[in-house]
Amino acid sequence: MKLMEEKILSEGVILPGGVIKVGSFLNERIDTLMLKEVGAEIARLYKDSGATLILTIESSGIAIAVAAGMAMGLPVVFAKKSKTAKKDDDVYKALVHSFSHGKENHVTVRKEYIQAGDKVLVVDDFLTHGSALNGLIAIAEDAGAEVVGCAAAIEKGFQMGGDNLRARGYRVESLAIIDEMTETEITFR
Amino acid sequence: MKLMEEKILSEGVILPGGVIKVGSFLNERIDTLMLKEVGAEIARLYKDSGATLILTIESSGIAIAVAAGMAMGLPVVFAKKSKTAKKDDDVYKALVHSFSHGKENHVTVRKEYIQAGDKVLVVDDFLTHGSALNGLIAIAEDAGAEVVGCAAAIEKGFQMGGDNLRARGYRVESLAIIDEMTETEITFR
Repeated sequence: MKLMEEKILSEGVILPGGVIKVGSFLNERIDTLMLKEVGAEIARLYKDSGATLILTIESSGIAIAVAAGMAMGLPVVFAKKSKTAKKDDDVYKALVHSFSHGKENHVTVRKEYIQAGDKVLVVDDFLTHGSALNGLIAIAEDAGAEVVGCAAAIEKGFQMGGDNLRARGYRVESLAIIDEMTETEITFR
Repeated sequence: MKLMEEKILSEGVILPGGVIKVGSFLNERIDTLMLKEVGAEIARLYKDSGATLILTIESSGIAIAVAAGMAMGLPVVFAKKSKTAKKDDDVYKALVHSFSHGKENHVTVRKEYIQAGDKVLVVDDFLTHGSALNGLIAIAEDAGAEVVGCAAAIEKGFQMGGDNLRARGYRVESLAIIDEMTETEITFR
């Protein structure tokens, strides 16, 4: 998606360690004109997928999932994060490692919000090592639902999370894939 | 807003202590068809406000703020929560008390995302005692911005946060106001 690549080039801030900050349009501050187009593009890509539910993770996945959900007329469920494991039989659980923040989160989805038979589109803002998407896929499959695919706004191709998912047979669509990043230059796939 | 009242009556779950659970359509699970109408209604209410920015708080405010932002063509900024105070001069800070969770959060907004001269519409899912909205208003006013009003999906009128803000001169629009709640009955204003 040309617009996402242009936004990354014009507003993204490259930090040491292969980190790119997109807080001015995709994260803390959200450009809703761009977001509407992101939702429309995910809807276009997955229009024939039969998806019945969009699954994401708080907080930064919510805006993109909601934009896609509005464009597709589908409900959105977001997994909650907590530092400690919950003793709760009413939730599906996964452990998600954040490489950018260097911490682990227990993520949960209440069992009543995802059903066997659901066709789940998993959505997040960033796809790097893939830990969040892997956790959400595990939760969907625990519920007996089928994962019809994944969508991310930005994928860092060099961190392999997306290609590992593709190798496992999942459909993964990222609106911009960064294959190389130096302090001064970004190369898209 | 009739739709919000109907949703509360049909899907809300009343818990002890004046708590109403709306996780099936407004929180963990989001009904995006309803959300689109929520965004349109907030846009209608504030169409002449001159708002330039929507300010909310993670996580559960994001969906509503994004729906309103898309309907109004405005950017959304969400305040981040953390358990501990950050020593960071680049952020505006407030302390927010959650009565439903019984804990305090430090909330922050990066200074670059809100400007003196902005006209800020403050949005959240719930308005109860008003601590979150008060914190967001304080942050906006610290930045030298003007608060043109507040919008909440659901206000619990008996917890006074909304009326206290109105008494201080703020415009507060809630899509449903619960004035009384027993274990079996909900009375709207």
